[in-house]
Amino acid sequence: MQPIRGWGNYFVSAGEPLEKREFTIDSVATDEVVVEVAGCGLCHTDLGFISGAVQTKHPLPLVLGHEISGKVVATGAQFSALQGKNVIIPAVLPCGECELCQAGRDNICQQQLMPGNDFHGGFASHIKVPAKFLCELPDDLAGFELAQLSVIADAITTPYQSLLRSGLKKDDLAIVIGTGGVGLYMVQHAKNAGATVIALELEQSKLDTALSQGADYGICTRDLDGREIKKQIKELVKTHRLPKTQWKVFENSGSSAGQELAFSLLSFAGTVGIVGFTMDKVNVRLSNIMAFDADVFGNWGCRPAYYPPVLADVLSKKINLLDNIELYPLSEMNAVLELAKAHKLTKRAILTPNR
Amino acid sequence: MQPIRGWGNYFVSAGEPLEKREFTIDSVATDEVVVEVAGCGLCHTDLGFISGAVQTKHPLPLVLGHEISGKVVATGAQFSALQGKNVIIPAVLPCGECELCQAGRDNICQQQLMPGNDFHGGFASHIKVPAKFLCELPDDLAGFELAQLSVIADAITTPYQSLLRSGLKKDDLAIVIGTGGVGLYMVQHAKNAGATVIALELEQSKLDTALSQGADYGICTRDLDGREIKKQIKELVKTHRLPKTQWKVFENSGSSAGQELAFSLLSFAGTVGIVGFTMDKVNVRLSNIMAFDADVFGNWGCRPAYYPPVLADVLSKKINLLDNIELYPLSEMNAVLELAKAHKLTKRAILTPNR
Repeated sequence: MQPIRGWGNYFVSAGEPLEKREFTIDSVATDEVVVEVAGCGLCHTDLGFISGAVQTKHPLPLVLGHEISGKVVATGAQFSALQGKNVIIPAVLPCGECELCQAGRDNICQQQLMPGNDFHGGFASHIKVPAKFLCELPDDLAGFELAQLSVIADAITTPYQSLLRSGLKKDDLAIVIGTGGVGLYMVQHAKNAGATVIALELEQSKLDTALSQGADYGICTRDLDGREIKKQIKELVKTHRLPKTQWKVFENSGSSAGQELAFSLLSFAGTVGIVGFTMDKVNVRLSNIMAFDADVFGNWGCRPAYYPPVLADVLSKKINLLDNIELYPLSEMNAVLELAKAHKLTKRAILTPNR
Repeated sequence: MQPIRGWGNYFVSAGEPLEKREFTIDSVATDEVVVEVAGCGLCHTDLGFISGAVQTKHPLPLVLGHEISGKVVATGAQFSALQGKNVIIPAVLPCGECELCQAGRDNICQQQLMPGNDFHGGFASHIKVPAKFLCELPDDLAGFELAQLSVIADAITTPYQSLLRSGLKKDDLAIVIGTGGVGLYMVQHAKNAGATVIALELEQSKLDTALSQGADYGICTRDLDGREIKKQIKELVKTHRLPKTQWKVFENSGSSAGQELAFSLLSFAGTVGIVGFTMDKVNVRLSNIMAFDADVFGNWGCRPAYYPPVLADVLSKKINLLDNIELYPLSEMNAVLELAKAHKLTKRAILTPNR
């Protein structure tokens, strides 16, 4: 192949600004391709790496970023058919061979590779990736810019897998705790599935967004204790004749308070999905799961196989993407990180190398 | 109908011996039948009522007992076809109409009736019950006495529903915590499903029984901490090339220690079933369920629809019942209760009114 000269923002040391560096890609394995990055979403996981709270698997310096869209510009021998195609790179790339992959649980394949964690990621002009599980885009992007579609990897797909795991169906009651970057799409997926959606959120502004994008009812939980929240939900159920049992509760806040709230909302034959992560433990009566004949599932990422239906929902505008993203030049990423740290980003930031 | 004169052991006051009293059944509703009791299993739930730890829903005095087999001797108009039939009475009788029943979750129907809790139970010569969900027995009991089959209600069916909920299949690894009255049948169901079974049990004698009835490997956990138990399981997995992921863990001990152990055995794409009950809370990192993409389900009772396959397994000897039960005359029930309190019953006691 022709050597490709690129550049990226390298994470060199925790707490320090990223460093712009150039690189050359001069080879590609038979099962790999090189993608010219159109856009890469900035995720909380990246902020965790940059602050030093979480360690990357690949030693530093490393290019971060795992919500990536772009165009294939060089291919290994096995994947020459992808040349010139627009793709989304799934946030986790499974091996496809192990017992978990064979069981359809490839989202937690133990040989999985994550861009911007196991190898150089998407905050760059180019990225070299294993090609097997790339999500190929149609020629017609329905008016979207390719960069805008990057956040389908992770922020929109992860709650979609949660939806499937929960078995949510038409006329069910979905209760979504935390309607930030992931929870907001949980609301949308649940609404698309035909459920009635109650959003629980600490911040009124995020709750308003959730209400404008599919939540039927919202409760701002900032000044309420768990008992009062449950009481208000029961009133909504009574007033609007919603299902009294089999509630599907999705906890996206990744906080112990959110998890305790979710657990307290176990209902008969109900389901609680743990979608957000926290290191904190919680003190709960696990036997309640038995007394309610209930289910608690945890959701890690999303199988690449589920990307196409999510992509279709975005392209057909069943999922509102454009109101929730904002594009920034990759060259100004350090300034964007400062905004993120100061909690001044209200929309998902997508870094684009071509502006 | 002809009046039926019967007798039963009435629970009158917590901590006191049961009182033998006579009664007359002189009417039966159109959707009810009267069953002449052949046998009624003594369950820990009964001991909880008798000690005063748990309250019955029906006011005292009440005849306890919810693991009942017998013969239909009088019928309401809708169920005349049951006259003379041998039946097992499911431990919980759902309404069949509500949203949970319609969703196939009738085992936790909120209008459900439990013999010996909501109405007079099986420690009697006769019982009047709703007929809709009775499990009819074949004419040929394959050499079993009718009384022996009583414990199919509850002790054998509850772990069967847990098996179905877990999705356990051939060549999976099942880890059964607590191999007492319920857990021992969990071992047998898991083995019948083709899994490799590791039994974890505090008492060596119970562990030996589990090993003789289907467990492939056993660990006596009395003097081991959680870390050591996990280490020994991993050694078994390595030595015998068992699955490294997707473990199905069934917690039957109903203790916080057992639940903490079960939670610590979450594996990638793994499943933990909470089958035993305790009021105690446990301190756990719920996020582990997310990090493992795992499932935790709770199991309450068993749907009447699952009784026939369990019955078939018992009659065909795929389930070993005879080694785990002992019959006692109902007239000597107070003495049996003393044995139970002193932990001197090593087998499930079945009380029979006809001896």
